[in-house]
Amino acid sequence: MDVKIINPFLNSTINVIKTMATMDVTPGKPTLKHGNRAFGVVTGLIGLAGDNAAGNLVLSFDQGSILGIVSSMLYEKFTEVNKDVVDAVGELTNMICGGAKAELVTLGYSIRMATPVMLLGKDVEVSQLTTEPVVMIPMKVSTGNFVVEAKLSKTE
Amino acid sequence: MDVKIINPFLNSTINVIKTMATMDVTPGKPTLKHGNRAFGVVTGLIGLAGDNAAGNLVLSFDQGSILGIVSSMLYEKFTEVNKDVVDAVGELTNMICGGAKAELVTLGYSIRMATPVMLLGKDVEVSQLTTEPVVMIPMKVSTGNFVVEAKLSKTE
Repeated sequence: MDVKIINPFLNSTINVIKTMATMDVTPGKPTLKHGNRAFGVVTGLIGLAGDNAAGNLVLSFDQGSILGIVSSMLYEKFTEVNKDVVDAVGELTNMICGGAKAELVTLGYSIRMATPVMLLGKDVEVSQLTTEPVVMIPMKVSTGNFVVEAKLSKTE
Repeated sequence: MDVKIINPFLNSTINVIKTMATMDVTPGKPTLKHGNRAFGVVTGLIGLAGDNAAGNLVLSFDQGSILGIVSSMLYEKFTEVNKDVVDAVGELTNMICGGAKAELVTLGYSIRMATPVMLLGKDVEVSQLTTEPVVMIPMKVSTGNFVVEAKLSKTE
């Protein structure tokens, strides 16, 4: 996998959270994902499919980070991960992916986006059917942590 | 959502399980999905994205159905849902989607497939960010049950 694909997802995540929730995101060091346990309590995922590439974008939020982000985004104090919060995770995943898509074109990847999927539950294992590495970027906001996982590789 | 899109997924599921595992699949009556709890212990999902449509295919297996299918497919007796079984769920999801894709073209849907994702865990809730109905088809094999969920709708 071309490591340059990380930047569009990283940039778009910071930009979308800043724009939608007026919150600063501090990215950590990208690493290769080991193990399949989902990082957070709620996870958004979106399939990426194009003429020449396939993959997924996965965002997994701990309770603090997503309650902080959604409370700020919707101008309402959320204290539990309810349906509105789960839907907001889908919207955020969609927006972040949409932002990255434009930048990916400049790297030679023309992709289309599937319908976002939201996963709710602790201890769920999420894996992708690929021999390619999945890159994970830890992210920090003032109220908690989340991770962005991206996999996008050229297809035949 | 056009209900005609169900048939390609239904036909392909029956065909792939028959071909790969030499097992007959008996489909039940398709219904609209209510609630978000995943049906089974292991779930395969694949994003669908095209010029004019987006969605997801989700297959969720109870332990009996998937151990029976994978044991027959790989000529080896599996008694627990281990990594090989989880990977086989991804492969089956990919093959079933690939089979449906060809038939969907005849209905006017040109789609590409994202990388398959596998979910392992009980009590996980899986939902899609859509106002369109998600259709669920219950399926039975000699060793257990699984469900096929399909959502594919036209995009602007």
